[in-house]
Amino acid sequence: MSAVTYELIKVCKQSGARLGKLHTPHGTFDTPMFMPVGTLATVKTMSPEELKEMGAGVILSNTYHLWLRPGEDIVEEAGGLHQFMNWDQGILTDSGGFQVFSLSDLREIKEEGVHFRNHLNGEKLFLSPEKSIAIQNSLGSDIMMAFDECPPYPATYDYMKDSVERTSRWAERCLAANKNPDRQALFGIVQGGEFEALRKQSASELTSLDFPGYAIGGLSVGEPKDIMNRILEYTTPLLPSDKPRYLMGVGSPDSLIDGAIRGIDMFDCVLPTRIARNGTCMTSSGRLVIRNAKYAKDFTPLDHNCDCHVCKTYTRAYIRHLVKANETFGFRLTSYHNLYFLIKLMERVRAAIWEDRLLDFKEEFFESYGFNKPNAKNF
Amino acid sequence: MSAVTYELIKVCKQSGARLGKLHTPHGTFDTPMFMPVGTLATVKTMSPEELKEMGAGVILSNTYHLWLRPGEDIVEEAGGLHQFMNWDQGILTDSGGFQVFSLSDLREIKEEGVHFRNHLNGEKLFLSPEKSIAIQNSLGSDIMMAFDECPPYPATYDYMKDSVERTSRWAERCLAANKNPDRQALFGIVQGGEFEALRKQSASELTSLDFPGYAIGGLSVGEPKDIMNRILEYTTPLLPSDKPRYLMGVGSPDSLIDGAIRGIDMFDCVLPTRIARNGTCMTSSGRLVIRNAKYAKDFTPLDHNCDCHVCKTYTRAYIRHLVKANETFGFRLTSYHNLYFLIKLMERVRAAIWEDRLLDFKEEFFESYGFNKPNAKNF
Ligand SMILES: [Zn+2]
Ligand SMILES: [Zn+2]
Repeated sequence: MSAVTYELIKVCKQSGARLGKLHTPHGTFDTPMFMPVGTLATVKTMSPEELKEMGAGVILSNTYHLWLRPGEDIVEEAGGLHQFMNWDQGILTDSGGFQVFSLSDLREIKEEGVHFRNHLNGEKLFLSPEKSIAIQNSLGSDIMMAFDECPPYPATYDYMKDSVERTSRWAERCLAANKNPDRQALFGIVQGGEFEALRKQSASELTSLDFPGYAIGGLSVGEPKDIMNRILEYTTPLLPSDKPRYLMGVGSPDSLIDGAIRGIDMFDCVLPTRIARNGTCMTSSGRLVIRNAKYAKDFTPLDHNCDCHVCKTYTRAYIRHLVKANETFGFRLTSYHNLYFLIKLMERVRAAIWEDRLLDFKEEFFESYGFNKPNAKNF
Repeated sequence: MSAVTYELIKVCKQSGARLGKLHTPHGTFDTPMFMPVGTLATVKTMSPEELKEMGAGVILSNTYHLWLRPGEDIVEEAGGLHQFMNWDQGILTDSGGFQVFSLSDLREIKEEGVHFRNHLNGEKLFLSPEKSIAIQNSLGSDIMMAFDECPPYPATYDYMKDSVERTSRWAERCLAANKNPDRQALFGIVQGGEFEALRKQSASELTSLDFPGYAIGGLSVGEPKDIMNRILEYTTPLLPSDKPRYLMGVGSPDSLIDGAIRGIDMFDCVLPTRIARNGTCMTSSGRLVIRNAKYAKDFTPLDHNCDCHVCKTYTRAYIRHLVKANETFGFRLTSYHNLYFLIKLMERVRAAIWEDRLLDFKEEFFESYGFNKPNAKNF
């Protein structure tokens, strides 16, 4: 049996969204779920205890970054990433592919892998399917991702077809390279950009390899939301219903709901922590920019409808003061609240699936958050 | 009765150090004690819950900084500093005097107060005894400090004599300005530099005003340690034994012990949190610079003899990785440990006073920390 299995509990009669459970070597987690990102073996500003308290089940960590710092050998010697960072719940590691294609502008894609330069010091590096899996085996994550090419957006059909086919060949090499299939599940990544035929080809080639889970990659790279939704609509039905489906790099509240409606079970994004470090908060009534002068004497919580520790304890005026003074504790508070907000949003999404009313919930949420307004921002 | 009272429990037969209790409107705290510094209504990187967990009783906050950001009016409207920052234990605020003299180089000292420029934007400001107390009354601290002049080091006898006499006149004005003597105790500050006669004059003038507590100011400004100790030796006996004695701005482990031996009850310093943000830790075997390469694969705790949450949970290798990657959580861990270290050091100092063996404890501690080595650093 695979290290990670998916249990389908219920399909929402109104929307088709899936309620399920993800069983991993480090616990079982309800889906659809949102995974906080802990790039360098830490979810920025947060402690593992805080993440647990807010109900984060699985976190994502970045293979590329940990490979460079501190090095996967050190993490392995520490007993793996869980022990290194004191996190006893699920960990998903990406493959490093995205960073190779987004952080490095000097790269050469060959069949054996990618030659590129370290974004920190310019040093020459090489990453291949085998190398990525070896690093992820050293890290000991519960879910590993196959090493894929992340093509630029937009890309031509011919470029994308080459890329999809190479990604399929790389996926097969990744499967063969996994030393710990009983403890670490490897997910394949469906690519293909905006080309339905290529998404079909990618899904068909990858599902024939029988991965324990599938991700949809190459989205949230700049395409309009309706394009993303349309791609999800024709791609998720191509994936087996007894395996988890993970939409990579997506974390705006509207996209989480739209993704769930289209059959997605797992999401990750740096958005909640990144905007928190700029003082932007997600609230039940929409985006709140805490630096705004109107909050200087506002002694109410960040979000009146939030029961997180931050909202129960601190005022907008205090958080604004800290953020404006660049005090770390301010960013702890905004990060905590934003992560809590998305984790609770997914709880509400699951409740709505259970009650066969996810489309109604979407309407209510979009209206109160302000997504129905003209020119609404996506966070 | 004064808002803050001191209860003398015992004098160490070996050293003369005092064991006592400080009763404040926000709790009773054992002395000698170390107060973490929360400049801008936050002890950098820490939460109030963490400070409580480590046993911090009283924290210090800075009047000058809070005056500028967010403004004492906002803190007052929030219900005072305790409520603003969610801290229900003791708070001491300084007078702003030190910042006026250390952060601003354009200043003019007059009898009515000091004209100077805002260190953030150059704006012209004026601080006087009355203004400092009015701000501290708005902040609502349990212990307020009199507005004093902090003379440069070294200063001439004539300059210092003028300064001491002005500080005494200002102290009297501060007492008269305190609107809440029943809820906020005002401490006088003995100045006089290295001049024994002036320390005597300052102590005599201030004790005649009958403050509920006395601080010794103008130390730890660059003078050698033996000078500081000698000044303490002739100054503390000038202070009434039924009032608390506070040595301002001192927080290196050796000086905490040396100060206690000379009859000091309270200390504060940014040292533990400042060096933590550079990755330097205080441990039972001395300074530990976590960035050092030798800790890259060291999977032992920061301090083998520390039972703080950080030392029970994380390794040197992990903390080094975080600090080198400039991750906030790394600075949370080093800050937590350093504050815990000093708070526990004071617990051990109190236990040694109880057992009439503080001089023995000093020898043992100095030996294990490395203070007896030639060219030992003071932290
Ligand atoms: Zn909240
Ligand atoms: Zn410790």
